Amino acid sequence: MSDALGIAVVGCGTVGGGVVEALLRHRDRLAQRAGRPLQLRHIVVRDRHKPREPFVPRELLTDSLAPVLQDAAVQVVVELIGGTTAAREVVLSSLAAGKHVVTANKALLAEAGPDIFEAARRAERTVCFEAAVAGGVPIIRALGESLAANQITAIQGILNGTSNYILTAMAERGLPYAQALEEAQAHGYAEADPSLDVDGSDAAHKLAILAQIAFGVIARPQDITRQGIDQLHPMDIRFAQELGYTIKLLAEAWTRSDPQHPDGPRGVALHVAPVLLRHTDLLAQVRGAYNAIAVYGDIVGETLYQGPGAGRGPTTSSVLADLIDLAVGRAQRTFAAARLWSRADRGFVLDPPEQVQSRFYLRLLVADKPGVLADIARILAQHTISISSVVQHEAPEGDGEPVPLVIVTHYATTGHFLAAVEQINRLPTVATPAVYYSMGD
Amino acid sequence: MSDALGIAVVGCGTVGGGVVEALLRHRDRLAQRAGRPLQLRHIVVRDRHKPREPFVPRELLTDSLAPVLQDAAVQVVVELIGGTTAAREVVLSSLAAGKHVVTANKALLAEAGPDIFEAARRAERTVCFEAAVAGGVPIIRALGESLAANQITAIQGILNGTSNYILTAMAERGLPYAQALEEAQAHGYAEADPSLDVDGSDAAHKLAILAQIAFGVIARPQDITRQGIDQLHPMDIRFAQELGYTIKLLAEAWTRSDPQHPDGPRGVALHVAPVLLRHTDLLAQVRGAYNAIAVYGDIVGETLYQGPGAGRGPTTSSVLADLIDLAVGRAQRTFAAARLWSRADRGFVLDPPEQVQSRFYLRLLVADKPGVLADIARILAQHTISISSVVQHEAPEGDGEPVPLVIVTHYATTGHFLAAVEQINRLPTVATPAVYYSMGD
Ligand SMILES: NC(=O)c1ccc[n+]([C@@H]2O[C@H](COP(=O)([O-])OP(=O)(O)OC[C@H]3O[C@@H](n4cnc5c(N)ncnc54)[C@H](OP(=O)(O)O)[C@@H]3O)[C@@H](O)[C@H]2O)c1
Ligand SMILES: NC(=O)c1ccc[n+]([C@@H]2O[C@H](COP(=O)([O-])OP(=O)(O)OC[C@H]3O[C@@H](n4cnc5c(N)ncnc54)[C@H](OP(=O)(O)O)[C@@H]3O)[C@@H](O)[C@H]2O)c1
Repeated sequence: MSDALGIAVVGCGTVGGGVVEALLRHRDRLAQRAGRPLQLRHIVVRDRHKPREPFVPRELLTDSLAPVLQDAAVQVVVELIGGTTAAREVVLSSLAAGKHVVTANKALLAEAGPDIFEAARRAERTVCFEAAVAGGVPIIRALGESLAANQITAIQGILNGTSNYILTAMAERGLPYAQALEEAQAHGYAEADPSLDVDGSDAAHKLAILAQIAFGVIARPQDITRQGIDQLHPMDIRFAQELGYTIKLLAEAWTRSDPQHPDGPRGVALHVAPVLLRHTDLLAQVRGAYNAIAVYGDIVGETLYQGPGAGRGPTTSSVLADLIDLAVGRAQRTFAAARLWSRADRGFVLDPPEQVQSRFYLRLLVADKPGVLADIARILAQHTISISSVVQHEAPEGDGEPVPLVIVTHYATTGHFLAAVEQINRLPTVATPAVYYSMGD
Repeated sequence: MSDALGIAVVGCGTVGGGVVEALLRHRDRLAQRAGRPLQLRHIVVRDRHKPREPFVPRELLTDSLAPVLQDAAVQVVVELIGGTTAAREVVLSSLAAGKHVVTANKALLAEAGPDIFEAARRAERTVCFEAAVAGGVPIIRALGESLAANQITAIQGILNGTSNYILTAMAERGLPYAQALEEAQAHGYAEADPSLDVDGSDAAHKLAILAQIAFGVIARPQDITRQGIDQLHPMDIRFAQELGYTIKLLAEAWTRSDPQHPDGPRGVALHVAPVLLRHTDLLAQVRGAYNAIAVYGDIVGETLYQGPGAGRGPTTSSVLADLIDLAVGRAQRTFAAARLWSRADRGFVLDPPEQVQSRFYLRLLVADKPGVLADIARILAQHTISISSVVQHEAPEGDGEPVPLVIVTHYATTGHFLAAVEQINRLPTVATPAVYYSMGD
C-alpha cells in the first residue's frame, strides 16, 4: 500500500465533526477504497477549549492554521468552517502552501470561484467540492463526469432542504409558514439564522456552481434573480393544489439559442423561485428535507438525482468521496480537464430573465364587482398573453371583502407578463399587489 | 492538445450507431471535454454490405477484428455487438492486444466478469461498463466513486425498462399483458425476443454487476432467484392498487449481519421479482421505460438515481462518458482501485433467499365456503406468520366459481412463508396454486 494521504480538517462542527469521526472510525475501509491510508493529522477550530464530541482526538486540535501549512505531510486541507472571510483565507493560503482543498462551502465558491480556481491552477493544486451542492447527492460528478459528453440544456433543482421541508409541511399538513420553519429548525435542517435558506440565496449559490460546470458561465450571486418562500401565502398553496400543482422552490437554468444568430453564443437564464409543478412531475414528489436535481442533456435526455440535501452523514459522504478521489488521483485529472471558473469561453452568456418563456399563475385580490375580470383580461391581451384557466370561488354573500381571483396563462415572455402585472396592479379594483409564480409545464 | 485517443467501435446497431454518430457529430465538444481528440478509426460489423445510416463512413467499415488489433493507434475497443460468444472473443482479444475495452454488455459481464477482469489486469488495461446497467443513469460511477466511502447496505432497482413500461401500461391504462408488451415492442423498448426482459434475466444480469461493485460478491446469473412479470395477473395489479400499492419489477440486494457472528462475513441476498411498493414510495412513481435505483449507504443514507434505461441516446451518453474517462485517465485509476471481480474478499457471502424477511401479499382462488379462511389462517399461524390484512369481496350470488382471497402478512422469513404456501396449496378448497409477492415495506 502506498503512502498515506495526509489530511487537515478545518472546522469541527456539523460537517467537520462527521468527517473527523468517519476518518477515524472507517479507517480500514477508506484505506482499502482509496488504495492508501487517509491520515488525519490536524483539526483546526476557533476555540480549542470548547467541549468536543468524544471521538475528537485532543492531541490533533489546534486553533491556528500555521501548523497545517507547515506540515509537509499534509496534502489536503478540508475547509468546513463556512462563511466567506476566514474560509477564503484558509483556502487561498492552503493552496499557496501546496495543499489540495476540499470544501463544502457554496457561498464561498459562488462568490470567489474565479479567484480560488485561478489560485489553484497557479499552485497546480486541486479544489474539490461535491459536498457544496445538494449534500449527499453526487450532482457535481454527474454533471462534470457522467454527463460529460452532453451539452446540458436545462437544470431544475430542489437545492434547499429547509425550504422543501417547510413547503412539504405547509402543503401536506396545512401548517402556517412560521410553524413549519420552527419544525425545520427543531429538526436541525435550518440554520440558526435561516434567512439564506428561505429567501433563495442558498439555492442561488448552488445554482451558480452548477451553471459554471454545465455552461461555463460565471454567475455572481447578484446575477441570479431570486425569490424565496418566505412570502408564500397558504392561499396560493391551496389554489395550486386545486389546479393539480405542487409549489416547490426551484433553482433553474434554461438555455436558449438565438434563431437570428444560430452560431452565436447561446443564452442561459438562471433563477430561483417558487414554481408550480404538476403533481405527477418527479420533482413535485420530492418531500421533506430531500434535494433533487433534474438534468437535461442533449444526448442522454433527462436524468434525475435525489438524496438528503444536508446534515452530517450525507455531507460527510461527499467530502470523503472527494478525499478518496484525491488519494486515487482522479480528482486531479478532473480538475485539470474541467478548467472551471477560467476564462475558457464555453459559448454561453447569461440571459436576462425577462426573456424566459413560461406559463404563469397570477393571484389577485379584487373587488367583487362586475367588469373586474374583463379589465384584467384586456390588459393581459394587450400584452399578447392569453388565459388558460380562471378560478374564482363564490364570495360569501355581500361582505364587501376583496375576493381572490386566480388566472393561469398560456406561455408568455416574462418581460411581457411583468409589464402586464404592473398595469394590473394600478387598477382601482385590485386590492393588493398581484402574486405570481411561473409554472413548470 | 495532446495525442488523440484512437477508438474502434465493434457493432453498429442501436447503440453502436449512436456512438459512431456522436463521435463524428460532436467531435469538437468531445475533444474539449476529454482534453484530446476522440478519434474513430474502425467500425466492425457482421455484414459489411448491409445498408447503413447515412452518417456511417464507409471507409471505416470492416467485418474483421484483425485490422483493429493490428492498428497500434487504436487504444480503445468499444464492444457493442451483444451476446456472450463473439462478444467475449472481441473483449478478450482486444485486451490481449493491449487495448482498453468499453462495453454495454451486461450479459457478458454477469457471465464472464471474473475472466474478463482477470485478463484486463494481466494486460494492464481497463474495462469500463457504465452503459451496461440502466442506460443513461450513471449508477456505476455512483456506486464505485461517489459513494465510495460508504458500505452499501441495500440496493433496490427498476433495471428493466421494458418490464416497467408494461407494468405502467397495465396499471394505469388497464391494458392486458400481451397488448402492453406489443406496445413496448412498437416503441422499440423491448427486444425482438423479449423473454430476457420480462422473465427477470436482464435485471438479474444488471444486479449481478451492481452486487459485484457494492459487495464484492461474484453472483453467477443462476445464483440470483428471479421471477419476471410474464405471469403477472391483472387481478393482482388491481388488488395491489386497492391496498395502496404499485407492483414494480425490482432487482434487490439486502445485506444482513449474523448476530451470532458479528465479525464474520455479512450476508447479501440477491433477487429479482415483482414487489408491491406503496404508492408514495419513490420507486413506485417511476413510470414507463425509465430505470431508477435506490441505494442505501451507511454514511449517506438513501440516494436515488433515475433516467432512461435504454435506447440509443442514453446508452451512447454512458459509452461516451467512459471514453472521456479513459482519455482523461480517470478510468484507469478507478479500475486499478476497484479490483472488481478479483479474489479480494470484501467480507460478504451470498445469502440464501429463504432467509430474507419480508411482508407478503398472498392471493388465492378459493371455494366460497365457510371455514376456508380459518384453514389458511391456521396454516400461516403454524409457520409463525401473522396476518396484517385480508381482502375478500362479496361473491356474485351462488355462481359456485372460486373467489379471490387476498392476505397481507406481517414480516416473515421467506423460507417459512414458502413452506406455509406449499401446505395451503394442498388444501382441497384452494383452486389454483397460490400467487404471492413480497411487499417493499
Ligand atoms: N451543515 C450541513 O448540513 C451542511 C451541508 C452542506 C454544506 N455545509 C457547509 O459546510 C460548512 C460547515 O458547515 P457546518 O454546518 O459544519 O458549520 P458549523 O457546525 O457551524 O461548524 C463550523 C466549525 O468551524 C469552526 N470555525 C469557525 N470559524 C473558524 C475559524 N476562523 N478558524 C477555524 N475554525 C473555525 C468552528 O469552530 P468552533 O467549534 O471552535 O466554534 C466549528 O467547528 C459550511 O460552508 C456549510 O455551508 C453544511
Ligand atoms: N439497445 C439498447 O438500448 C441497449 C441499452 C443498453 C445496453 N445495450 C447493450 O448493447 C449491446 C448492443 O446492443 P444493440 O441494441 O446496439 O444491438 P444491435 O442493434 O442488434 O446491433 C448489434 C451490432 O453488432 C454487430 N454484430 C453482431 N455480431 C457481430 C460479430 N460477430 N462481429 C461483428 N459485429 C457483429 C451487428 O452487425 P450488423 O449490423 O452487420 O448486423 C450490429 O451492427 C448489447 O450488449 C446490449 O445488451 C443495448
